[in-house]
Amino acid sequence: MLQGHQSWKFLNRPVIQSTATVVGPDEGKGPLVDDFDIVHGDLQLGQDSWEKAERSLMEEASSIAVKNAGLTTGEVQFYIGGDLMNQIISNTFAARTLTIPYLGIFGACSTSMEGLALAAQLVDSGGAKHAMAGTCSHNCTSEKQFRYPTEYGSQKPPTAQYTVTGAGAAVLAKSGDGPVVTGATIGRVVDMGIKDPFNMGAAMAPAAVDTLQAHLRDFKRQPGYYDLIVTGDLAKVGYEIALELMDKHKLPIAQTTYKDCGLMIYDIENQAVNAGGSGCGCSAAVTYGHILKQLRNGSLKRVLVIATGALLSPLSFQQGESIPCIAHAVSIESGG
Amino acid sequence: MLQGHQSWKFLNRPVIQSTATVVGPDEGKGPLVDDFDIVHGDLQLGQDSWEKAERSLMEEASSIAVKNAGLTTGEVQFYIGGDLMNQIISNTFAARTLTIPYLGIFGACSTSMEGLALAAQLVDSGGAKHAMAGTCSHNCTSEKQFRYPTEYGSQKPPTAQYTVTGAGAAVLAKSGDGPVVTGATIGRVVDMGIKDPFNMGAAMAPAAVDTLQAHLRDFKRQPGYYDLIVTGDLAKVGYEIALELMDKHKLPIAQTTYKDCGLMIYDIENQAVNAGGSGCGCSAAVTYGHILKQLRNGSLKRVLVIATGALLSPLSFQQGESIPCIAHAVSIESGG
Repeated sequence: MLQGHQSWKFLNRPVIQSTATVVGPDEGKGPLVDDFDIVHGDLQLGQDSWEKAERSLMEEASSIAVKNAGLTTGEVQFYIGGDLMNQIISNTFAARTLTIPYLGIFGACSTSMEGLALAAQLVDSGGAKHAMAGTCSHNCTSEKQFRYPTEYGSQKPPTAQYTVTGAGAAVLAKSGDGPVVTGATIGRVVDMGIKDPFNMGAAMAPAAVDTLQAHLRDFKRQPGYYDLIVTGDLAKVGYEIALELMDKHKLPIAQTTYKDCGLMIYDIENQAVNAGGSGCGCSAAVTYGHILKQLRNGSLKRVLVIATGALLSPLSFQQGESIPCIAHAVSIESGG
Repeated sequence: MLQGHQSWKFLNRPVIQSTATVVGPDEGKGPLVDDFDIVHGDLQLGQDSWEKAERSLMEEASSIAVKNAGLTTGEVQFYIGGDLMNQIISNTFAARTLTIPYLGIFGACSTSMEGLALAAQLVDSGGAKHAMAGTCSHNCTSEKQFRYPTEYGSQKPPTAQYTVTGAGAAVLAKSGDGPVVTGATIGRVVDMGIKDPFNMGAAMAPAAVDTLQAHLRDFKRQPGYYDLIVTGDLAKVGYEIALELMDKHKLPIAQTTYKDCGLMIYDIENQAVNAGGSGCGCSAAVTYGHILKQLRNGSLKRVLVIATGALLSPLSFQQGESIPCIAHAVSIESGG
């Protein structure tokens, strides 16, 4: 049900019955390697195009999630998915394979939590018995579509981020064992006029803080309610800006309880990922792999995931537009 | 609440408090000219790019819809929108202007009913007091992105469709006067192996009939329950195929009660639109302009709008993939 102006409170506490994550070789070299279901050693996944490889990531993650929930695809009413590809083809082709009724969504890298929020809303309100949310990204498809062909070997500034090769999916149910989704806050588009696609963390940080403020206002909470507040993919530059903005807005957040998925998925000092990770798969893999594991084993009790998205297109950038950004937040708490 | 396998029944009957439609010059020369709020005589809308013109259509339609509902943007909790542009930039920039919390969606030309279904689900379940759904398309942005630069003047086969320049938006509320949304059926991805982007009606027709069958099964209804069943943009070729498929599946539908928005928006005998209209704006403009007017004045009582979408991307086509299609259906009934 509506909570405040732009949030939902899930009174029936929909359960995250299962999750699955599938990643590529660079993510497999990162510190969270043990938290993923499948780590591919080959970026191509045996496919003949990067696009097919990305689709495979999504198909694998969603089918494992359904299986781990003890369900068949016929028992999941809705699949809610999207990705960075033009016309979200990775998820569309995965939905064709799944044959689950499909709601396509797009929030760039905020897609992970947009999908989880909608899936939780549907299950909470009785609109679905089971709903699955999923998203993915692939380093090479993103480079090709948003930047330059990788073969150019063009250099990047240290503010640039490295698109995660990975997919994550979560199956929600009305009851069962597992962490529960207790609320969500849907973000507004925030655009501070930044036009540099090699500095997306800086562009997205204000959206993350705007949604965090809205979330705390709508739920009348202090940041200390959460053991962990985690943004999606602000990476090094955006993370520092977010910390400054939180301080400016007098949000009392200890640096120890605020993290960013883009800084967690790689060893950014020793991997060539510039400022850190990005992409739809970044927050999805870290949340559904690493964070859910900690919620399940009790080392975390209450987490707020604020997935951030830079909603630019290559064309809007070429036409001189600034980068509109958004962030959607979902609160996940240990069950029981 | 969930109805059958893939449908929602809206027991609180959310009201379509207002709608607005804005179209371009070709749609203004069609038979529905009197049903639109604004008819632009100039495809460019005074903007310096087609993309900005498309965004203007969406901004106009959504702001008129909010105003006609007697609301301010601050009173609408969620805006649910999407379009055909890469990364749905038209709706993202419109959402930036609106400053309403934003859920980006993508279902190609089925986006209109995907948005209306989700908005109705939110209002019906208490997830929003007011929610707005919107979508748009522009002939020149679509030609440029999906086909060839218009300056080439390339010829097209008669099976090709003409992308509508138009936008439509609808504001939903829990109570009030106006037609009500009584149910929705979310489609599966259906792909019959068609690869020709100049014959999208044929590709989409099976998805439309699949969703119609699911709708009738989930609600235990006969087609005769509706005064009008209307598909989004199958146009001439797809319409004939849909009729054949309905006949094959023994769905007793009189040709007089089954129509297609792509055949309604233009005078296809006398306008150079090949097989008829397509694009996100097609079903949105016809539904929110023409059909809602008839539901308001009582000449229609029960309508099922099945918006159809061809979920291809230019890249998936170039890589030899077939065209995955989907259709989402929403039932709208006169209020009271």
